Amino acid sequence: QMEQAEAKASESVAADPTDIPEPIDRFEPKTHEVELVCEEVTAEIESGVTFNYMTFGGEVPGPMIRVREGDTIDLTIRNPDRNNKPHNVDFHACYGTGGGAEATTIAPGEVERLRFKAMYPGSFIYHCAVATMDFHISSGMFGMILVEPREGLPEVDHEFYLGQHEVYTDKDKGKEGHHGFDFEAMKAEEPTYVLLNGEEYAYTADNKGPLKVETGDTARVFLVTGGPNVTSNFHPIGNVWSKSWAEGAIESEPEINVQTKPVAPGSCFIGEMEFPVPETVKLVDHALSRVVHKGMMAEIKAEGE
Amino acid sequence: QMEQAEAKASESVAADPTDIPEPIDRFEPKTHEVELVCEEVTAEIESGVTFNYMTFGGEVPGPMIRVREGDTIDLTIRNPDRNNKPHNVDFHACYGTGGGAEATTIAPGEVERLRFKAMYPGSFIYHCAVATMDFHISSGMFGMILVEPREGLPEVDHEFYLGQHEVYTDKDKGKEGHHGFDFEAMKAEEPTYVLLNGEEYAYTADNKGPLKVETGDTARVFLVTGGPNVTSNFHPIGNVWSKSWAEGAIESEPEINVQTKPVAPGSCFIGEMEFPVPETVKLVDHALSRVVHKGMMAEIKAEGE
Amino acid sequence: QMEQAEAKASESVAADPTDIPEPIDRFEPKTHEVELVCEEVTAEIESGVTFNYMTFGGEVPGPMIRVREGDTIDLTIRNPDRNNKPHNVDFHACYGTGGGAEATTIAPGEVERLRFKAMYPGSFIYHCAVATMDFHISSGMFGMILVEPREGLPEVDHEFYLGQHEVYTDKDKGKEGHHGFDFEAMKAEEPTYVLLNGEEYAYTADNKGPLKVETGDTARVFLVTGGPNVTSNFHPIGNVWSKSWAEGAIESEPEINVQTKPVAPGSCFIGEMEFPVPETVKLVDHALSRVVHKGMMAEIKAEGE
Ligand SMILES: [Cu+2]
Ligand SMILES: [Cu+2]
Ligand SMILES: [Cu+2]
Ligand SMILES: [Cu+2]
Ligand SMILES: [Cu+2]
Ligand SMILES: [Cu+2]
Ligand code: NA
Ligand code: NA
Ligand code: NA
Ligand code: NA
Ligand code: NA
Ligand code: NA
Ligand SMILES: [Zn+2]
Ligand SMILES: [Zn+2]
Ligand SMILES: [Zn+2]
Ligand SMILES: [Zn+2]
Ligand SMILES: [Zn+2]
Ligand SMILES: [Zn+2]
Ligand SMILES: [Zn+2]
Ligand SMILES: [Zn+2]
Ligand SMILES: [Zn+2]
Repeated sequence: QMEQAEAKASESVAADPTDIPEPIDRFEPKTHEVELVCEEVTAEIESGVTFNYMTFGGEVPGPMIRVREGDTIDLTIRNPDRNNKPHNVDFHACYGTGGGAEATTIAPGEVERLRFKAMYPGSFIYHCAVATMDFHISSGMFGMILVEPREGLPEVDHEFYLGQHEVYTDKDKGKEGHHGFDFEAMKAEEPTYVLLNGEEYAYTADNKGPLKVETGDTARVFLVTGGPNVTSNFHPIGNVWSKSWAEGAIESEPEINVQTKPVAPGSCFIGEMEFPVPETVKLVDHALSRVVHKGMMAEIKAEGE
Repeated sequence: QMEQAEAKASESVAADPTDIPEPIDRFEPKTHEVELVCEEVTAEIESGVTFNYMTFGGEVPGPMIRVREGDTIDLTIRNPDRNNKPHNVDFHACYGTGGGAEATTIAPGEVERLRFKAMYPGSFIYHCAVATMDFHISSGMFGMILVEPREGLPEVDHEFYLGQHEVYTDKDKGKEGHHGFDFEAMKAEEPTYVLLNGEEYAYTADNKGPLKVETGDTARVFLVTGGPNVTSNFHPIGNVWSKSWAEGAIESEPEINVQTKPVAPGSCFIGEMEFPVPETVKLVDHALSRVVHKGMMAEIKAEGE
Repeated sequence: QMEQAEAKASESVAADPTDIPEPIDRFEPKTHEVELVCEEVTAEIESGVTFNYMTFGGEVPGPMIRVREGDTIDLTIRNPDRNNKPHNVDFHACYGTGGGAEATTIAPGEVERLRFKAMYPGSFIYHCAVATMDFHISSGMFGMILVEPREGLPEVDHEFYLGQHEVYTDKDKGKEGHHGFDFEAMKAEEPTYVLLNGEEYAYTADNKGPLKVETGDTARVFLVTGGPNVTSNFHPIGNVWSKSWAEGAIESEPEINVQTKPVAPGSCFIGEMEFPVPETVKLVDHALSRVVHKGMMAEIKAEGE
């Protein structure tokens, strides 16, 4: 098992933004068997720089869970023996102490279960919430659960799932080698990295490539902001959020043609876009020093004429 | 009178979140005689750590004032002779230069009056606004005035009143003894403490005990964010804001099922909650390092089955 | 031409908030010839302190552009030979790579053109977006384009146009002489100055004088927040935003009687005010240390009885 952990040392934690569950196409409630595996992995935060991540499922953000209002989640959370730390999970979609965190705290080698009903729609963060939760989230332990309203969501051509969070390391950004965690910087809310999907510019032409749509398409972007401390100012350069739901609060009235939306740490955002012209859209936190100097950006390329 | 000030040195400034005026049950305008007494008191910010607070009424947040749209406030502000500094009060509910601050600036030993009509509904901060207002607010001088709409507010089972603000001290958090004020840290917006009701974890099981409701109840939470500089990201762990009004703007459309809401310094928030299951809800600023390392949290315990 | 640049050394960059285009009074689309001239100018950021600004048109914020949904903007951008740096412009009102930035990057001595149709209404920032865009924006390169909805905006008595941004200098605020730019402070998001219209307290009684209305008037305030990093918490001291549109998203439902509104870097705000009593309103970022210690404020004086 140590071999597996070592094998991960050179991998990327960046979750594929298109690897998400299908839209709900049901009018009956359902019970979902969901498994979250806590994975402590060392990976590159940018080329030549490694960091000890903690994750759900080895990815940042953790797997997107997709249910319908009234569905039941039958969760299994595993903390494999190869890990070093206790973990748990707090769902903002769950009524109950700690959003489930109290019931799910487990040491390495343990398994726990949590069963809850999704009683209100919206897109919600889930995250590790042990006593040092800010450290665990900054290390990568957050994801999103989408609770679709009973009537579902309007059809779009593409959906993308992204997670912003910030990392506090003990070296200057870009300094080659292994970066440890800087707890004083976290207390001061002065991050070294601000990232989409846990890695510098992961989904851009210079790295794993941009996300792709065709001219004339529509897309829906789900953002979860892990934080632990920093608010995103989420903007699509060269485009606009035609319709958007602050806080992922899908039952609220949408805001129309929004340029830049604050997304709090521990919150979500849903935005719909159109692509009337061929272009490369850059998704950014419009606190632009985070884009220029801290690694924050993803791209959507609209191809065709 | 000095004896009274000294007697307060070991007291807590944390206002009781349930000690608030009754909902309005009237359809006629009224004039309210309101008295605010500026109190400079030394008290514990956490166990073993004292701080020189400035307050309205010896409490943080200051007394909640509750009126109906169209009512008149006939305010008396007193700055007792035992104080050392000038004070005044700026009501965000008041049209007029400084929201009344210009008319109410008084030296120790002075009394002033201000009469104004509450012309628009909502929950609004009031705060000291002398030239060094950021220092006075960080020391505790802020509270909330609720201007109910003419038709009143829907009935709920419980109402709670909380105030978030941040304190800049010249020692590390938790360092035993007396902490002075750090003006450079305030300019840098790097607080030592981020608090609900002026004291570390004041309304939690480890301190004065949690707030209490019964399973099946509804509750309304009023938050005033004093700042002076820091935005709250207000989240009920293990619950959700079923209905909420950003900025305390009660005439705006409510947002539905909001997980985390930014509340700016110098602003308010109104959130309604349900308690379908027994649990302990933790009210936090979801910039979680403020919870883990700076003293920010309150609890609501829903008892029963 | 160097003479012209030197002649500007003692000028102010603070744009006149009343010097804005007339409301749209048309029901047919139109093409606008718009010219933006990039100007690198040295000017006073406060009395006795100079700073090397980069601007559009020599002013902060840059000229307000006003069009109707469906209109075409035929833009010419000039980078005069006397400048030292490349520049471009990103319009948040424009579909296309970089919001036009890719197509408009020009070296000193060059001219470029961009033609685009304003396809969605709202008030939107435009800003320089070269690779070091945070530096260029902090130096002053941002402004606003208002795209009125087809039906226009309700009539008000006065309109004002303001821009907030923050500047990172290598000396303490107020230290006499010339201040250079501090790139480390920008990365740390720790500004020296937070300003309305690029200069300390530019539109207040102590400087160029307050803005003026009469008692009983209505006014509309347009704010563009350049950042590059800092969120405004926009509050009218002694007044309230009777109606307001977060993000400048004019097609969204307005919020009613808002005290303080977060305005993200790279975003806008539209607020309407009433002046039922004579007073001086102070427009501030309610992160009050920015008002007390960093130069942020403008005044509106309502005269008459
Ligand atoms: Cu964890
Ligand atoms: Cu949480
Ligand atoms: Cu005061
Ligand atoms: Cu105020
Ligand atoms: Cu530029
Ligand atoms: Cu931009
Ligand atoms: Na900081
Ligand atoms: Na559109
Ligand atoms: Na700071
Ligand atoms: Na509900
Ligand atoms: Na900082
Ligand atoms: Na009004
Ligand atoms: Zn963990
Ligand atoms: Zn497609
Ligand atoms: Zn843009
Ligand atoms: Zn005072
Ligand atoms: Zn009860
Ligand atoms: Zn939670
Ligand atoms: Zn430029
Ligand atoms: Zn007038
Ligand atoms: Zn005020």
